[in-house]
Amino acid sequence: MKAVTLGPAGTYSHRAARAVADDVEFRESVSAIVAAVADGEYERGVVPIENSIEGSVTETLDALSDNDVSVTQEIVTPIRHALLAQSGNFSTVASHSQALAQCRTYLEAEYPDVALEAVASTARGVERARNDPAVAGIGHPDNAGDDLEIVAEDIQDRQSNATRFFVVAPPSERSDAGGKSSVVVYPNANYPGLLLELLEAFAERNINLSRIESRPSGDRLGDYLFHIDFEAGLYEERAQEALADVEAIAEKGWVRRLGSYDTRHVLY
Amino acid sequence: MKAVTLGPAGTYSHRAARAVADDVEFRESVSAIVAAVADGEYERGVVPIENSIEGSVTETLDALSDNDVSVTQEIVTPIRHALLAQSGNFSTVASHSQALAQCRTYLEAEYPDVALEAVASTARGVERARNDPAVAGIGHPDNAGDDLEIVAEDIQDRQSNATRFFVVAPPSERSDAGGKSSVVVYPNANYPGLLLELLEAFAERNINLSRIESRPSGDRLGDYLFHIDFEAGLYEERAQEALADVEAIAEKGWVRRLGSYDTRHVLY
Repeated sequence: MKAVTLGPAGTYSHRAARAVADDVEFRESVSAIVAAVADGEYERGVVPIENSIEGSVTETLDALSDNDVSVTQEIVTPIRHALLAQSGNFSTVASHSQALAQCRTYLEAEYPDVALEAVASTARGVERARNDPAVAGIGHPDNAGDDLEIVAEDIQDRQSNATRFFVVAPPSERSDAGGKSSVVVYPNANYPGLLLELLEAFAERNINLSRIESRPSGDRLGDYLFHIDFEAGLYEERAQEALADVEAIAEKGWVRRLGSYDTRHVLY
Repeated sequence: MKAVTLGPAGTYSHRAARAVADDVEFRESVSAIVAAVADGEYERGVVPIENSIEGSVTETLDALSDNDVSVTQEIVTPIRHALLAQSGNFSTVASHSQALAQCRTYLEAEYPDVALEAVASTARGVERARNDPAVAGIGHPDNAGDDLEIVAEDIQDRQSNATRFFVVAPPSERSDAGGKSSVVVYPNANYPGLLLELLEAFAERNINLSRIESRPSGDRLGDYLFHIDFEAGLYEERAQEALADVEAIAEKGWVRRLGSYDTRHVLY
């Protein structure tokens, strides 16, 4: 099995991809990975869909609605925060506000006098550390590279933080079996109660929604498509009924069934 | 009135800020802008909240839930796409897939033979153009700087694309009057139908939701806070009733009223 994911070697994505394929190659963007699978160049692609700090990976959501692929598995991996700096002598820790919050206990105990600086992402903070010896960033130990020191590992307050990946495959491999399903809905309409109607289609059949995300259609401000994850297999009658309702609501737009899948936890 | 927004001079943010203040200063991140207003350093901050191509500005959503500020106005500005390259001789146009889609008519007519490359953002595409003479990007003409040529202006298919900004102010200036309101809800709970209950609180009072966005709480995967924009003033009885229901749903968490406001359209 040949898979493609985000490089370089050692990223969370690479670790997740090794769980589904022996032969892993790299592309530089999520869009390129999903397009390569849609074109039949690879049997599988592994892309991050959601992270407990940064939230949804919007590039992945958009790639899944723009390309004809299926989702065959979900992989969840824990986040491990390390403190990364050019040396132990720094006066500022720069990271995403939620990563700072997740490491608060450690930072207050070990570095009570350093300034905390909120930046747009954990990657931005590590970049700041790379360019400024007075700054430390927070990230997976593998992000240290050659120029940063791993000052401390596993500094997060608890272990429950994680990243979710989707394994994508050609559309012919779409499965209806599995405990969770994902669909993309573009109603191409906007009226009071539209979103409520969509949610009721599932609630009436006692199907739990694990997540709903809106993304701009790109056509006009306030026009959205919805990524919906729900806890039922597409083969189930209640799921088929709910989706029939959803298709009626989206009669001017479209509904894309990405597939059903199970969750695999990759720990390391 | 002194306001702070994203620089450099000439950005969309700067244009929007000039509509509310004569004296505009710059900070390099949305987080820094919102924190500076919360600290009382500036009377107003102007931050992008949503864009019809890129979607929500997640850094703004997070800054609004992390800081004690109010929202006093919404500003909407049109997007103007220009084709930016080192010269008219390029073989690839690199941009966000939705910006490419928005300029399809123009590109097919004028450049039928160039390759279209989807990248993570319009900014990434312009960066590619800056580094590679064979690549063109798509962006506002002011992004050309000294090293790129404006090959063509206003190449978008239609004029309805826009960016939405929030004007933030110290919490003491929170207004209950205005046609729209924004709140942030952290239920600190997760059970089937939770989101549906939140939406019903508004639907039952015939209040239209113009937008709902989930953001990770940062505590654990699958734990969200919700940014809700609705079409009613906080002073209205139906809004107060709806928010009382929402507060009961979020009894283990919290509800933050950002304020009510009107929309101002800035055209140029």
